Amino acid sequence: MRMYDIIEKKRDGIELTKSEIDFVIKGYCNDEIPDYQMSALLMAIYLNKLTKSELLYLTDAMAKSAKILDLSDIKEEGKYIVDKHSTGGIGDKVTLIVLPIVASLGVTVFKMSGKGLGFTGGTADKLESIKGYDINISLEQACHQVQDIGVSLISQSPEIAIADKKLYALRDITATVESIDLIASSIMSKKLASGADKILIDVTVGNGAFMKNIEEARKLSETLVEIGNLAGKETKAIITDMNEPLGRNVGNALEIKEVISFLLSDETTLLSEEIKDLKDVVFEIAAYMIKMAGCGDDIEKNKIKIMEAITSRKAYDKFIELIKAQGGHIYEVYMDWIGMNLDMPVLEDNIKYMKEIHAQKEGYIVSIDSKKIGEALVCLGGGRQKKDDIIDYAVGFEFNKKVGDKVKEEETILKVLYNDKEKFDLAFDYIQDAIVIDNIDENLALALKSKPHVLDIIG
Amino acid sequence: MRMYDIIEKKRDGIELTKSEIDFVIKGYCNDEIPDYQMSALLMAIYLNKLTKSELLYLTDAMAKSAKILDLSDIKEEGKYIVDKHSTGGIGDKVTLIVLPIVASLGVTVFKMSGKGLGFTGGTADKLESIKGYDINISLEQACHQVQDIGVSLISQSPEIAIADKKLYALRDITATVESIDLIASSIMSKKLASGADKILIDVTVGNGAFMKNIEEARKLSETLVEIGNLAGKETKAIITDMNEPLGRNVGNALEIKEVISFLLSDETTLLSEEIKDLKDVVFEIAAYMIKMAGCGDDIEKNKIKIMEAITSRKAYDKFIELIKAQGGHIYEVYMDWIGMNLDMPVLEDNIKYMKEIHAQKEGYIVSIDSKKIGEALVCLGGGRQKKDDIIDYAVGFEFNKKVGDKVKEEETILKVLYNDKEKFDLAFDYIQDAIVIDNIDENLALALKSKPHVLDIIG
Repeated sequence: MRMYDIIEKKRDGIELTKSEIDFVIKGYCNDEIPDYQMSALLMAIYLNKLTKSELLYLTDAMAKSAKILDLSDIKEEGKYIVDKHSTGGIGDKVTLIVLPIVASLGVTVFKMSGKGLGFTGGTADKLESIKGYDINISLEQACHQVQDIGVSLISQSPEIAIADKKLYALRDITATVESIDLIASSIMSKKLASGADKILIDVTVGNGAFMKNIEEARKLSETLVEIGNLAGKETKAIITDMNEPLGRNVGNALEIKEVISFLLSDETTLLSEEIKDLKDVVFEIAAYMIKMAGCGDDIEKNKIKIMEAITSRKAYDKFIELIKAQGGHIYEVYMDWIGMNLDMPVLEDNIKYMKEIHAQKEGYIVSIDSKKIGEALVCLGGGRQKKDDIIDYAVGFEFNKKVGDKVKEEETILKVLYNDKEKFDLAFDYIQDAIVIDNIDENLALALKSKPHVLDIIG
Repeated sequence: MRMYDIIEKKRDGIELTKSEIDFVIKGYCNDEIPDYQMSALLMAIYLNKLTKSELLYLTDAMAKSAKILDLSDIKEEGKYIVDKHSTGGIGDKVTLIVLPIVASLGVTVFKMSGKGLGFTGGTADKLESIKGYDINISLEQACHQVQDIGVSLISQSPEIAIADKKLYALRDITATVESIDLIASSIMSKKLASGADKILIDVTVGNGAFMKNIEEARKLSETLVEIGNLAGKETKAIITDMNEPLGRNVGNALEIKEVISFLLSDETTLLSEEIKDLKDVVFEIAAYMIKMAGCGDDIEKNKIKIMEAITSRKAYDKFIELIKAQGGHIYEVYMDWIGMNLDMPVLEDNIKYMKEIHAQKEGYIVSIDSKKIGEALVCLGGGRQKKDDIIDYAVGFEFNKKVGDKVKEEETILKVLYNDKEKFDLAFDYIQDAIVIDNIDENLALALKSKPHVLDIIG
C-alpha cells in the first residue's frame, strides 16, 4: 500500500477502504507518512468530502491510534457514563456549571477538557485560574476520585487519540480545519476513546463558533450523531446560540466567578432575564445528561431537580468538593445574605487596571461579535496565540449590556479588566469593532433580546 | 500576506491575485513556505483549477523564479528562435532528428532537454549514450557553439525556472502531477525562461503519455498556446499519437541508432510504411519549426526541403557536427551501400544478452501499451526509478512488429537487449502484459496500421 495511491484515489473521488484509512492514520502517527503527503490528502478530503463509511473508519482509526479508556470500574449498575463536549465559544462556562449540578444528582462524571487556542477559551484554562487546582492528575487518580466523590475534571489526556493531536496541528496551518467531516472525526475520535457509554455534544452556532449558521450546525450535529450511533454509543447534539458571548463574563477567573454566582443563585435569580441565556443552555444540557445517564427520563422533571440542586446549594457543594479533591485552594467567607460561612475558591485574579467602554451614541445593541471579543481576550493575554503562550487568568470583560439592551450615550456597555496598557490598546480595536449600536424599532430589540438560546436537538 | 490565507482562498474557489501568486512562488523557492502548506495549495489548485489570470501569473512567477535567458546575441536578423518541447513518450527520439534537420536548413537551434524519470525517457539521457558527448556545457559555451554551427543541445540548465524543479518534485509525491493547469505552467515556465521567441510543443496523447485522450490533449494544447500568446510568444501545439512506442526502438543507444538510420534514409525508405509513424511526426514538427523560425512559410514546401535535407545527408552531417562540437566520439565506417566513409557516433552499447519475444498465438497485434514498455525499460535499467539511478544506455527493445501487423504463432514480435538476467525477469511481465494479439478483421487491422500520427494542430 502506498500513500501516493491513496491521495490519488481520494483526489479522484473514489471511496477509501478501511485498511487504506488505517494505513494512513497508523503511518502518520509513526512518522512514516510525511506532513506534505498528509496535507495533500486533507485538502482532497476537505474538497471531495468523506462518505459515511470513510468517516466512520477515519474516526475509528483515530480513536484507536492510542489508548481507549475503560471506565467500567467506575460505572454504577443501571447507569451510564455520559461524556459532554462543546464545539467551543466565547464565555462558554457551561461544563463548569453542568457537571457539579448533575454530579450532585447522582450522575457519574468523568470529564477531560482541552486548553484554549486562538479565540475560543478552554475549560482546562478556566479551572487553572483556581489556585492549586491540578488538572493534570493521572487517569488512575481521576478514576479513584470519581469513585469517592462522583466527579473529576482533568485535562485532555496526552494518551488519548494521538492521531487527532497531530492531525489538528497540521490542519491548523494548512486551511483544512473548517471541514465538517474533519471536525466531526476529530471530536468523535476523542469521545470514542474516552470510555463513556454515551455522548452529548453542545454544537455552538454563530459569530463566535466554528459553525456560522444553523444549516452547518445541523449538518455537523447529524454527522456527530451518526458516527456515535454507528460506533455503538448513543449520541445527542444540542445546538446552542453563540452569536454573542454566553453569560456576562469573558476571561478565565471572571468566568469562574460567574460559575460561582450561578451555582449560588436563588430561584428568583434563576428565573430572571439577566442570566436567561446561560441558564437555558445549562438546564437543557444538564437535563439531557441526567436522562442519558439513566437518572431521570423526563426532561421537564429533570429541570425541576436541577433548580432544586442549585437552590439547595447541593450543586455548589459538589463544585467545592471537586475543587478540593483536585488540590484547589479554598477560603471561607461570611455571606451576609445567607447568614453563614461559605467556601470560596482562591482565584488568580490580580488586576491592575479597569476601564469602562461607553456607548458612543444612544440606541439598542444590535450585535456583539463574540469572535472579536475572543480575539480581544487573546490580545489582553487571557488566551493563547501560540500553544506555549502563558495565560493571564485575571484579565477579561464584564458585560453590563447585551444584545437587545437599550443604551444611552456614554452609558457603560462593558468593563475591561487588564494588567498591561499596551495590550489594552491592542484589544481596544477588536472591542470597538465587536459592538454595534443602532436605532432599531423597540419590538425588534425585544425580539433580539428574547431570541432562543437552545436552537435544536439532534439524535 | 500569509500562506494560510492564500490556501484558504484557493480552497474556497476565490481567484488569487498576482501578488499572492508571486508571494507563494518566491516564498517556496526561499524555503519560507514549507512543503506541507505548498502541497495543500497544490491539491486545492488540482481540484478547483486555475483561472486564466492565475495560470498566467503562476507561469510568469515560476519563469521569473530564476534566470531568464537572453538569446538576442545568437539571433539572426529577420529570423526567430523557436523552442521545441515534447510532453513525453516512449521511443520519442523526435527532437534528435528534427533539430539537425532544421539546423541544416538555416534555423538557429538552442535547445535544453531534460533527463528521464519514471516510464518516459529523456532526450538528455539518449545523447549521453554517445561516448564523450557533454550535455552539461555552460550556457555561454552553448551560445558560442550556436554562433559557430547553428545548433546546440544541452541539459536543462539548473539556473532556469528553479521553482518548477522544486514544485515538480513535490507534485510527484503528492498525486498532483496530472493537472492540466500545473502541467501547462510547468512546461511554459521553462519555455518562457529559455529565451526563445516562439514555442512549439509536441503534445503526446495515448497510453504512453500524460494525456490519455484527445480531449485532454486539446485542452492542454489550448492552455499552453494561451499562456504562450499572453506572454507575447507565438506558441503552437502539435498533438501526436503515443498509443504505441514511436518508431521501432526503445532504449537510449538503440534510439540513437534509429536516429542515425532515419537521417541516413533514402527517399524510398522515407516513403515506406516501415517508418511512417516517426516520419509523419518528424516532418510535421520540423516543417512548423521552419515556418515559425521565419525560414519558409509554406508547410508543404518545407516538407520537400526536409526530404532533401535528409536525402542529401546535410541533416546527418549537421547531427555529426553537433556531436563533435560537444565532445562526442566519432569513428569512420565504410558504407557499402553509399560507397564511402561515414562518421558514426561511438555508443555505450555493450550488450550481453538478447532474447526474442514470440507471439503466443496467431492474429493481429491490436495494441502495445507504451507505458508498460517504458516501465519494462526502467526494469532493465534503461530508465530511472529514482533521480539518482544510473542508467544502462545499451538495454532496450527492437520491435519487429507494430500495431496492425499480422503475426504467426511463435513469430518474433520484438527483441529484448539486456545485461542482467534478474532485471530481464522483472521486465518480462510488463512486456507480456503490454502486447495484445487478437483475431480481428483484416480491414480493422489495416485501419489500426494506417491510423494518423499527427492528430491536430492548435494555435
